[in-house]
Amino acid sequence: MMKTGTGVAIVGASGYAARELIDILLNHPDVRITATTSRQDDAPRLDALHPSLARRIDLNCEPFDAARIAERASFAFLALPHTASMAVVPDLRRLGVRVIDLSADYRLSDAQVYADWYGHDHTDADGLRSAVYGLPELFRDRIPPANLIANPGCYTSTSILALAPLIAEDLVDRRNIIIDAKSGVSGAGRSPKLPYHFPECNESFSAYGVGRHRHTPEIDQVLTEVGREGSGPVEVIFTPHLVPMDRGIFATIYAMPKGTAVEHDLIELYRSFYVRSPFVRVVGHLPATKDSAHTNFCDITVRIVRGRILVLACLDNLIKGAAGAAVQNLNLMLGCPEEMALM
Amino acid sequence: MMKTGTGVAIVGASGYAARELIDILLNHPDVRITATTSRQDDAPRLDALHPSLARRIDLNCEPFDAARIAERASFAFLALPHTASMAVVPDLRRLGVRVIDLSADYRLSDAQVYADWYGHDHTDADGLRSAVYGLPELFRDRIPPANLIANPGCYTSTSILALAPLIAEDLVDRRNIIIDAKSGVSGAGRSPKLPYHFPECNESFSAYGVGRHRHTPEIDQVLTEVGREGSGPVEVIFTPHLVPMDRGIFATIYAMPKGTAVEHDLIELYRSFYVRSPFVRVVGHLPATKDSAHTNFCDITVRIVRGRILVLACLDNLIKGAAGAAVQNLNLMLGCPEEMALM
Amino acid sequence: MMKTGTGVAIVGASGYAARELIDILLNHPDVRITATTSRQDDAPRLDALHPSLARRIDLNCEPFDAARIAERASFAFLALPHTASMAVVPDLRRLGVRVIDLSADYRLSDAQVYADWYGHDHTDADGLRSAVYGLPELFRDRIPPANLIANPGCYTSTSILALAPLIAEDLVDRRNIIIDAKSGVSGAGRSPKLPYHFPECNESFSAYGVGRHRHTPEIDQVLTEVGREGSGPVEVIFTPHLVPMDRGIFATIYAMPKGTAVEHDLIELYRSFYVRSPFVRVVGHLPATKDSAHTNFCDITVRIVRGRILVLACLDNLIKGAAGAAVQNLNLMLGCPEEMALM
Amino acid sequence: MMKTGTGVAIVGASGYAARELIDILLNHPDVRITATTSRQDDAPRLDALHPSLARRIDLNCEPFDAARIAERASFAFLALPHTASMAVVPDLRRLGVRVIDLSADYRLSDAQVYADWYGHDHTDADGLRSAVYGLPELFRDRIPPANLIANPGCYTSTSILALAPLIAEDLVDRRNIIIDAKSGVSGAGRSPKLPYHFPECNESFSAYGVGRHRHTPEIDQVLTEVGREGSGPVEVIFTPHLVPMDRGIFATIYAMPKGTAVEHDLIELYRSFYVRSPFVRVVGHLPATKDSAHTNFCDITVRIVRGRILVLACLDNLIKGAAGAAVQNLNLMLGCPEEMALM
Repeated sequence: MMKTGTGVAIVGASGYAARELIDILLNHPDVRITATTSRQDDAPRLDALHPSLARRIDLNCEPFDAARIAERASFAFLALPHTASMAVVPDLRRLGVRVIDLSADYRLSDAQVYADWYGHDHTDADGLRSAVYGLPELFRDRIPPANLIANPGCYTSTSILALAPLIAEDLVDRRNIIIDAKSGVSGAGRSPKLPYHFPECNESFSAYGVGRHRHTPEIDQVLTEVGREGSGPVEVIFTPHLVPMDRGIFATIYAMPKGTAVEHDLIELYRSFYVRSPFVRVVGHLPATKDSAHTNFCDITVRIVRGRILVLACLDNLIKGAAGAAVQNLNLMLGCPEEMALM
Repeated sequence: MMKTGTGVAIVGASGYAARELIDILLNHPDVRITATTSRQDDAPRLDALHPSLARRIDLNCEPFDAARIAERASFAFLALPHTASMAVVPDLRRLGVRVIDLSADYRLSDAQVYADWYGHDHTDADGLRSAVYGLPELFRDRIPPANLIANPGCYTSTSILALAPLIAEDLVDRRNIIIDAKSGVSGAGRSPKLPYHFPECNESFSAYGVGRHRHTPEIDQVLTEVGREGSGPVEVIFTPHLVPMDRGIFATIYAMPKGTAVEHDLIELYRSFYVRSPFVRVVGHLPATKDSAHTNFCDITVRIVRGRILVLACLDNLIKGAAGAAVQNLNLMLGCPEEMALM
Repeated sequence: MMKTGTGVAIVGASGYAARELIDILLNHPDVRITATTSRQDDAPRLDALHPSLARRIDLNCEPFDAARIAERASFAFLALPHTASMAVVPDLRRLGVRVIDLSADYRLSDAQVYADWYGHDHTDADGLRSAVYGLPELFRDRIPPANLIANPGCYTSTSILALAPLIAEDLVDRRNIIIDAKSGVSGAGRSPKLPYHFPECNESFSAYGVGRHRHTPEIDQVLTEVGREGSGPVEVIFTPHLVPMDRGIFATIYAMPKGTAVEHDLIELYRSFYVRSPFVRVVGHLPATKDSAHTNFCDITVRIVRGRILVLACLDNLIKGAAGAAVQNLNLMLGCPEEMALM
Repeated sequence: MMKTGTGVAIVGASGYAARELIDILLNHPDVRITATTSRQDDAPRLDALHPSLARRIDLNCEPFDAARIAERASFAFLALPHTASMAVVPDLRRLGVRVIDLSADYRLSDAQVYADWYGHDHTDADGLRSAVYGLPELFRDRIPPANLIANPGCYTSTSILALAPLIAEDLVDRRNIIIDAKSGVSGAGRSPKLPYHFPECNESFSAYGVGRHRHTPEIDQVLTEVGREGSGPVEVIFTPHLVPMDRGIFATIYAMPKGTAVEHDLIELYRSFYVRSPFVRVVGHLPATKDSAHTNFCDITVRIVRGRILVLACLDNLIKGAAGAAVQNLNLMLGCPEEMALM
């Protein structure tokens, strides 16, 4: 049975986020995957790269060719490393392909901040100007007309969703926010390196990139934008850690309330803030990553401890933190229900 | 070959800390395990409870009897739940047995604080008065003459060792300290319960006991004591999390410096503070729990991030956080080198 | 939006297989979950038992009541322990509810064999006579008209699918088959017990129930039935092991060929045998449980080593080994495509 | 305090077996580590390669130089990949250094078999002739005078110890032995490769190298030697699997008895066979890898299932399967008690 629907391409199909994306899109009634690419020269079958996809999709991974993609697809998901995305986006856009970029290349609106944190100049100023930050819960109205979506980072989505209500309502000190974040190992990608070699990271817990993680400026930028005008920049302390598990992000966030904070009121504020957002579950219990694993949900709760606000949030880094959010964006761009293929 | 040496008893031998204790003591040249007890009625062989000890020790677990212990042992390690320890300590002490208690019963010097956090009245005021808090790195001089040692909790040891230099030197705001702590599952003990059932906690990361964990007042009390007189109480925000691994505690600690903090100077301060402490390793790299697993070391480093001091510390909850520290205390009480059987 | 479709009930909704079943059925276009039951007295919300289901289903777990189920559901899935199923099946059937039983109660056609291996008499001889063994790959034609399906065990499905082509073609010695099987811990259910306590089974590999596992007679019975008449009973040596992972069954099977076996020919035989079975993937590479995890696929390959046939097969014990197979059966009973909600 | 004792060198100190070796030797009263080498050019500190060793040893990893080693050490442990060992052994031996080689280079006595399985010619025929296979439980008398020890492989030790009593007593069919073996991931070494990348092998179980694993001829050779003369070659079917855990080997072995086998008698046979071997624990219960992890024990039990003999055995691949066995050999060569530093 030949499936019909809008043609989409997956550029950079060999990694984990791409595999999740394919897995989700195969169940999307209005979409058809028409091209997958990878840097491998030999055009391997997709299910040779991802044996879990056998019997579900019958495509080869071709070398990237913008024109060929434009012939077959209206949308391209880029699951590429940073710098690789901005090298192909201008061509794709010129050929009329709408792009959902899962890399970091279009997330920071200031090219100088990009250069400072990523160590490369940004080469696509035009793209940067027109890119829309693809966090539907905050920017739902900007996404439908966009032709270039910067899909948020995994730590970023967790942190921003957890803090947005407090910042939007100006309830906390913006310079006194601590995000202690923990990630499963798939967040580090699929390239074998010593820190992710099983006998190194299994049965171990550690911090990494302390004070230097590139999701920091992204969190600062988006939360600053969420705040009321004139209330000044948000500047967070962000500490990532590596957890010996496959998937999941957990953020424990400490914020100093401006006035007296009441737990129950905050929970209600969060529920009201996210009332239109089907994928944010404001829960009463303490969430665990396992409950949102393999789903597009972000689970959030709030506690007061000795006068400090604690927000605890988690999601699946490969789904709500990457591929699922990308499909949420696609749904909005296509005019489909936001939940399609995701619930 | 009959080993000689001071006789010691392990009261409550069926759990994980007891097993580690036995494992360590079997390699202690000056000590001999002469009795082990458990609540089981049938006096099982110790290696039926702990198959890993087969061929290494040939003892049965008898029901507890203070007099029989006093006949055979000069020291008793209590690896009991709280309230069970204070039920047996008075008898043991009356019979001249020196006690190293791994439970929480004698850690809080104020019986009211104990009652508030543990939900039981304290029944041994006399013991409470004479108990010495057994953290050798801070109280090395009090331990040798003690006859009742309150062995510190695992989160507590990590947190106190990580913060003591900052508090002793009065470098940080005592009311603005956040301890985001993570523990392997053995910290929850050996009784099967749903949260520790493998398919529940494996591949999951979660917080628990937020704002209510009983190690909080212990950290507050000891750090307050470490501070200079008149500098006021330490009051920490302590958040424990469960990591899908067997053993290890990791603490990420955020403290607000009173003046300007310089990373290199702090590292030097820590090195100097712990120069006599063989089991504290002040390291330059970011530590990982795996490097201190199965050892009695506590690894610590310091970073400055956006003006905030971060202390990152880890240790093995069953060893430096329990059994190893207990043997360190025993060594001091016996006049042995502190490292004996532990390095 | 009120979903329509055939009403189904989940009896015994608190375990892992039930949760997977609900997860699958929520995406089934022709089915609606109308009742869930559990033994808890307080009728908890389903998402209190399974927080992962929050926002996806809004039902309480009621105490079991056959009449109430019959009012609301045409089908009942029983996710109960053995003996509990046969206590409720007669009532449900009398009331016209078609039953898919995930317990072991109706799998063994001989009540005496049941009594021998399960230690209880069978109390529903009538049910036993009319039950159909619900392995669609072998008994696809018997399932549509059935009103009582014995859903196969997880080890059993793996072993039978891996061996059926060899037995059907009479290619191997039926008394010289060794099944060395390995299971993730969710196979042991959701009740906390010491062997499944995280610090016991994590970082450990062990065998259990050697020579006594209850899936043995089930494998023997079904494979004997698969064999050509007169070729005698199959009698396997079956050894289960526990793997420190959540889900997945892997079987390494050793069979002695009657003649000379050729690897390539066997692979072709398997492909041909399963050509109508969308969920059996006969692969060339060595399969890994992770590739079939969270899917309804069973992956199989064949090797010849020193003249012996090795069959390597794996599947997800909670899906193809339980809930997914149950939905496959439901699809056949409803006349839906076998893959519905499962691919 | 300067430790005294026989000087030993660790050649190839960057891997897991080397780290375990250093850990053990640091507690050996009669031995002193005087040199460590690695291929890194920059002579890194040993504790930069292995942070767990900080504060325990203060040495740099120098490039290999046979003469410098000979000046400082009487013994050299080689923890090198195969082919690298035979490139340095002749020089070390010529300079009078006794060698314990943890690689596979001297395990197979027939150079042609080596070439067939390892794909390289053997370049040290002289070494091959004088090498002693270092499994103390079987060849305890040959080891003391040896100057070149081929330390057994991890799968090999497990398999041979599990089968030796049956072969020595000629109780089973030598051509009908199946070894279904499972290993933790540290067995694959410390070089990052995709199959050992955490998100690939975590939560997965798979077979590898089916019919082609290089420990096969080693098992065949040693067991053939163990058998009574004239009873013909042992030829096993050996299947290795990868378990998502750090360490541990488990072997489930199926052997066909020549006569009628009685479980109790076999257990007694094993106990008697290993009565002089302190590190073989013949147990009544089903062993688990965790009970021998971090020890030099090999745990074995025997069962009869439907007339077949099952032997279940496990050990720690890095200790009894590598470093611990190497120290056992050293102890015998030094005339120390076999258990020294190992119990």
